[in-house]
Amino acid sequence: MATALDQLRERLGVISDLGRAQALLAWDERTQMPPAGAEPRAEQQATLARVGHELQISDELGGLLADAEGETLNASYDSDEASLVRVARREWEKARRVPTDLSAELTRASSLAEHAWVRAREESDFAAFLPHLERNVELKRRYAECFEGFEGFEHPFDPLLDDFEPGLTTPEMAAILAQLRDGVRPLVAAVAERRDAVDDSCLHGRFPLAAQETLAQEIVTGLPLQEGAWRLDPTVHPFATAISPADVRITTRFDEGFVGTALWSVIHEAGHAMYENGMPRELWRSPLASPSSLGFHESQSRLWENWVGRGRPYLGHLLPRLRDLFGERFDAVDADGLYRAANKIEPALIRVEADQVTYNLHVALRFELELAIFNGELELSDLPEAWNARTAEYLGLEVPDDASGVLQDVHWAAGLFGYFPTYSLGNVIAGQIWDAVTKDVPDLDERIGRGELEPLHDWLAEHLFRHGNKFMPAELIERVVGGPIDPAPYLRQLGELAAEVYGI
Amino acid sequence: MATALDQLRERLGVISDLGRAQALLAWDERTQMPPAGAEPRAEQQATLARVGHELQISDELGGLLADAEGETLNASYDSDEASLVRVARREWEKARRVPTDLSAELTRASSLAEHAWVRAREESDFAAFLPHLERNVELKRRYAECFEGFEGFEHPFDPLLDDFEPGLTTPEMAAILAQLRDGVRPLVAAVAERRDAVDDSCLHGRFPLAAQETLAQEIVTGLPLQEGAWRLDPTVHPFATAISPADVRITTRFDEGFVGTALWSVIHEAGHAMYENGMPRELWRSPLASPSSLGFHESQSRLWENWVGRGRPYLGHLLPRLRDLFGERFDAVDADGLYRAANKIEPALIRVEADQVTYNLHVALRFELELAIFNGELELSDLPEAWNARTAEYLGLEVPDDASGVLQDVHWAAGLFGYFPTYSLGNVIAGQIWDAVTKDVPDLDERIGRGELEPLHDWLAEHLFRHGNKFMPAELIERVVGGPIDPAPYLRQLGELAAEVYGI
Repeated sequence: MATALDQLRERLGVISDLGRAQALLAWDERTQMPPAGAEPRAEQQATLARVGHELQISDELGGLLADAEGETLNASYDSDEASLVRVARREWEKARRVPTDLSAELTRASSLAEHAWVRAREESDFAAFLPHLERNVELKRRYAECFEGFEGFEHPFDPLLDDFEPGLTTPEMAAILAQLRDGVRPLVAAVAERRDAVDDSCLHGRFPLAAQETLAQEIVTGLPLQEGAWRLDPTVHPFATAISPADVRITTRFDEGFVGTALWSVIHEAGHAMYENGMPRELWRSPLASPSSLGFHESQSRLWENWVGRGRPYLGHLLPRLRDLFGERFDAVDADGLYRAANKIEPALIRVEADQVTYNLHVALRFELELAIFNGELELSDLPEAWNARTAEYLGLEVPDDASGVLQDVHWAAGLFGYFPTYSLGNVIAGQIWDAVTKDVPDLDERIGRGELEPLHDWLAEHLFRHGNKFMPAELIERVVGGPIDPAPYLRQLGELAAEVYGI
Repeated sequence: MATALDQLRERLGVISDLGRAQALLAWDERTQMPPAGAEPRAEQQATLARVGHELQISDELGGLLADAEGETLNASYDSDEASLVRVARREWEKARRVPTDLSAELTRASSLAEHAWVRAREESDFAAFLPHLERNVELKRRYAECFEGFEGFEHPFDPLLDDFEPGLTTPEMAAILAQLRDGVRPLVAAVAERRDAVDDSCLHGRFPLAAQETLAQEIVTGLPLQEGAWRLDPTVHPFATAISPADVRITTRFDEGFVGTALWSVIHEAGHAMYENGMPRELWRSPLASPSSLGFHESQSRLWENWVGRGRPYLGHLLPRLRDLFGERFDAVDADGLYRAANKIEPALIRVEADQVTYNLHVALRFELELAIFNGELELSDLPEAWNARTAEYLGLEVPDDASGVLQDVHWAAGLFGYFPTYSLGNVIAGQIWDAVTKDVPDLDERIGRGELEPLHDWLAEHLFRHGNKFMPAELIERVVGGPIDPAPYLRQLGELAAEVYGI
């Protein structure tokens, strides 16, 4: 007779398999699918999601959970068994809160809104998008109301945040982002006065796509991803996805005029992929075989992109290959020049093109606005004005049209409220992890300079990856760095960077 | 209130979506997946199959079927509604007959047998494979026994055949294949005396892979597949699959020493793909949006590969391009020479390398042996001997080892008994269709010679594709060509071909 825990494992395994199949359908849609396949694909995706959701909210799963809880009463909190039951219980309780009709309506409305957003952005027509945004916000309010009395939720925005960063409260997130914003703004102001200190012309020009593709493949091959467990494909909007921990897929785009797009985007997505690839085998095919939260996921992409990929040792290691592939531009620059170019700080209107420092202001702006919306302090019709005012305040830039302003990102069209702040949270966590790693591995820079990235990877595997999704982010950060979330290390590191590059 | 028919449609739509997702997972596994992903992928495939199967055999589906039958009492036999209910009813009845444990054991045993077969073939060691074959046969006997009293099944092999060719009985299939065998053998014997009449050296040599890839892409682009609804990828064992009717995927392999591999394999698989692509929109996302049987599916691949792709008009159209891409070999040959080379008839040991005429003897041999096994007339341990004897009799060839004999095909390892005969059935149906098309489109050859393939495609769409899977093969052939399955046209055409090419 199988124990309830075994049956629960199998049931969660089925839900996991359905989710992985969805990931493959999505990857295929964005990298391989012939265009005519779009409509049937949308139905296939909806079906897999619905079948998985029905299993996820079933009474049967609830019964197995209750029985498995009985069977694991004596298991330690950190054990795989207790963690599985605990995590699955929380997900089941959350999923059960939301009526099927509301779920379906959220999916439908955001799908319509995304289509409307594409057109609205093309025409920079916020008014055309406004009714869809209103509908999304209304539905998300109703969604949040489903969690009345849910343990740990107090602020009306908490349930939205929780879907991406479990357990982190709105006041906590607001405090982190405010501290970050207030630390970054003086840096940006100081840099603005020394803009000529950095010349990044080596990164701009004409970089043949074939050579960029070679570079991208070589970069990923040089990262400590498991051999035979990844692939890299071109796409329009880069992403990484895991079809399983042993099958991670990185995508990138190439810009013929700026080699940095492919270079750092590939390392960024590979950072996500290494985390997925690092899930311990004993957790596979369960809800524990995933990164703990978006913040932690982003900590890995940012760590590899910015701390490694924009670091002097790695760039010094890469430079000879850049010279081989692209010639003269890189013959004219040394490792220090490349390092400075890679770390240019300059406010820009578009978040996805922002440098690593001002990026945090883009996030703060968005989070503050979405919070104001859900606090009832900001009418949606006033959103463009508020956006533009804050852009002027934080970035010193005038927004010429809504396409380069409030309409630039898909997230709100897709119903993703509470998602943006995890981007900055990733930076904060990466900063804390970097401090911890450099303490434990004193010759890290030297090793990276020789292209040896295993020491960093092994540290991450031992301190972070091995926990999978067993713990809430607040528990996990304690286990990884021995303390709570704290923006101080990241801010200190940004200050050091600005000092080095801009002499301030 | 949704009607039972609407609910049935939705339920069958879910089952269809799950099947399509499985098709994508399988395509991806064979064309894109990083090798380390194999084990989790097997679990994902098994899960999707199981979830689909549970829906397929559910009491709920049975209830919807009964209610929908009541709602469609007055619908005409040929209507989409009546056909949907009729086809779904038959599939449900069949699926319900098989205990879940037996299904699972069949899957498990054939998976083990396939692995054992790979090794056994490598080492030409039939004894090592024998226990797996015995297990497969035993399980398939038990499977067949589940259908005791099922309408239309009389012969113990009928249930196995029915999974690939619904409704065709074993005696019917045996009669067709015997007529084919007895018609083909004298042709092969006559050709053997004039072997020097055909020189196919233009197809052998060195054909750079990049040029072959260009050729393959151009060939498929030139076929009347819907634009933006297909793709072509390299693989080890070529196949075609439909992720939806609007997303069909062709795969091929390339042989640097023989341009024919890619050329005719691509046209063959594209033939399958055009059939899938031709499913009428109103039948999408239902069990009716598939080809009617393997025999009909194969009729399309063979029609395009052999009647079109090895026909003089198409080859004449293709020749200038072959000269562009590969130069001298094709400069030295004219359209007639290319046509003769493409239709060389010469017995060979390996089925997948056989010419289009002797191919039917490979199939007859296999079908006769599997029938003897299930009739209890042949011990599995005697199979190699029986195989070799029949190879000598039909093909005049001595089998040097089991790897080139009884172990050459994966089908029996995969538990596919009753599958082989559909290959020849496809030829027979294609021959009947070709006669019907050439009657309706008198200038077909001329059009094909100009590269105009739409007239053939349009005929097929109107007479075959539009029926989807609404009818049993025996009903469908009547609707397509106005008569029953009949090998005579195909045999007459083969005779004409041999007369033209070999002057006999």
